[in-house]
Amino acid sequence: MSHELVQRLFLRYFDNPILARLDDAAVVGVSGVEFQVSGLPGPKPETRNPKLAFTTDSYVVSPIFFPGGDIGKLAVCGTVNDLAMSGATPLYLSAGFILEEGLPLEELERVVASMAAAAEAASVHIVAGDTKVVDRGKADKLFINTAGVGVVPAGVELGSDRAQPGDVIILSGTIGDHGMTIMSQREGLRFSSPLQSDCAPLHSLVAAMLDTLTPLPLGEGKGVRALHCLRDPTRGGLATTLNEVAIKSGVGIEIDEKAIPVRQAVRAACELLGLDPLYVANEGKLVAFAAPEAADALLAAMHAHEHGREAAIIGRVTAEHTGRVVLRTPLGARRILDMLVSEQLPRIC
Amino acid sequence: MSHELVQRLFLRYFDNPILARLDDAAVVGVSGVEFQVSGLPGPKPETRNPKLAFTTDSYVVSPIFFPGGDIGKLAVCGTVNDLAMSGATPLYLSAGFILEEGLPLEELERVVASMAAAAEAASVHIVAGDTKVVDRGKADKLFINTAGVGVVPAGVELGSDRAQPGDVIILSGTIGDHGMTIMSQREGLRFSSPLQSDCAPLHSLVAAMLDTLTPLPLGEGKGVRALHCLRDPTRGGLATTLNEVAIKSGVGIEIDEKAIPVRQAVRAACELLGLDPLYVANEGKLVAFAAPEAADALLAAMHAHEHGREAAIIGRVTAEHTGRVVLRTPLGARRILDMLVSEQLPRIC
Repeated sequence: MSHELVQRLFLRYFDNPILARLDDAAVVGVSGVEFQVSGLPGPKPETRNPKLAFTTDSYVVSPIFFPGGDIGKLAVCGTVNDLAMSGATPLYLSAGFILEEGLPLEELERVVASMAAAAEAASVHIVAGDTKVVDRGKADKLFINTAGVGVVPAGVELGSDRAQPGDVIILSGTIGDHGMTIMSQREGLRFSSPLQSDCAPLHSLVAAMLDTLTPLPLGEGKGVRALHCLRDPTRGGLATTLNEVAIKSGVGIEIDEKAIPVRQAVRAACELLGLDPLYVANEGKLVAFAAPEAADALLAAMHAHEHGREAAIIGRVTAEHTGRVVLRTPLGARRILDMLVSEQLPRIC
Repeated sequence: MSHELVQRLFLRYFDNPILARLDDAAVVGVSGVEFQVSGLPGPKPETRNPKLAFTTDSYVVSPIFFPGGDIGKLAVCGTVNDLAMSGATPLYLSAGFILEEGLPLEELERVVASMAAAAEAASVHIVAGDTKVVDRGKADKLFINTAGVGVVPAGVELGSDRAQPGDVIILSGTIGDHGMTIMSQREGLRFSSPLQSDCAPLHSLVAAMLDTLTPLPLGEGKGVRALHCLRDPTRGGLATTLNEVAIKSGVGIEIDEKAIPVRQAVRAACELLGLDPLYVANEGKLVAFAAPEAADALLAAMHAHEHGREAAIIGRVTAEHTGRVVLRTPLGARRILDMLVSEQLPRIC
């Protein structure tokens, strides 16, 4: 229901050219010169002024504590990552808490301490907050909303509608870790090599990628322009993210299944629960779409970063079968990777 | 619990000079020049650059539809007003929805349509959104978080810590309307003159107030500097807001009870339920603290605005009894108006 709701209802009522892009973060005009209160300031490609990125997410993950993180760390990293995917340097976060009456104060304190540590690790400041308490049974322990603002450096323009035929598609690491950790906790599954959420802030990985491109004389002038799109494959997983980019950019995508790293424990848990890791949520991974001449520099920068050590080219953008993602299996067969129709895993984030 | 939580737990972990002010909106550096990614940019008093205001609130009001509004209108107006209280022109909102499974789509659509209308009325754009669905019984119909960004014009510096002895205190209209409307709905009370929430966006009232001051040669140089603090008395009502300003500014406050307008139906409902209108939430009112020489201009501007027709001076700031609010009753007695200790009315917003 969620995806359909966003697409139909919200777009119908909140229609404007920024929201309509439905990217992870809205990028809006920022400086004193560019702001126009009446009329919506569109991004001006040639401006030297930085632009503001603005994003929000609510977190309802259950259980609220899990291996590799908790709802607080997730709420900070998720919003930091949404900002980072627009190329922005995350700066400020807000935190809105909805608490169920009876939540033990120790649990709240653990979550808040975790948020503070995650904010420090991500170099962001939590500058605005709000708390509401509802009766027992009217919420489930606690829900957290974080919104974030950041600044997109001049020249950086990323978007799900900017992938181009010929682009390489780079994945920063293994998939399915977060989603399968949550599912295994709920189902009480145990594995010999324990599952752990990949929940992590990706802002410094993105900064390293932009930094490595900036001085390079690549195809389209400034080096950063060789990077076309960044996405973090959260809800709906890698397959859903790739489909969204294929549709919005009006391109085809071809993926090589054996190039996609999946941990053994994740694969085992997926088999047990009948899930496909390609559709399972990640919270510390990104997919990059870039001009092929930028691939080597990007991979080198990613491999040197703790959150990009396993980065690999997993596929390419094509001019054929636009709007579709095609997977090449290890045996050489080709199958279409559909968009996730219903929400596969509830309360995963 | 809510107020204590914010004060103790959050400040302990999220400590930084901006959040510590605990005002309605955080005011942070904004332009390309002022932004410093490492280190927290404090507001520079003499800068000519605009500053960014950033705020968040979650809305859990029950019932979600009520006379004069609904949770959607409230979520837009509440965040618009928090921005306006910092002197900011509200520009962009985010909207995060937490939906209980089984919420009728018609109800969601009514709320979304109401948000869109409220956003248009407030001249803001909803540019980022998110939806989460939780199982039936794990939330109550729907909760909405809105965060907002706006720009504070150069020269405007408002804050709960800026009230000064001698300041006049101006209230924009009647108190208690929103809170008593919600309570009456819940209790099934009916009155001959029906109660209606005052839920309204106050950005244009604030703009009119700033506009009227700007050209005036008032005490402290630029006219807008004669305005020291704006607050919207929401949760905890007027009494709580006045106490917060008295404490943060280190001043005393004297209020004249008979100067405070209360509708007859609100008064009747309060008597029936044993509540004091001074502690009941408002969603379309503001309190202004300003140098006395600005009072006439401010009142004239407010009276000319639809949301300030009943604006009146309700008291003064004193150098005596710092940190305390003293109420003069119609009979001439003086009593101390305490801070609301526990949350008097749950789920009022």
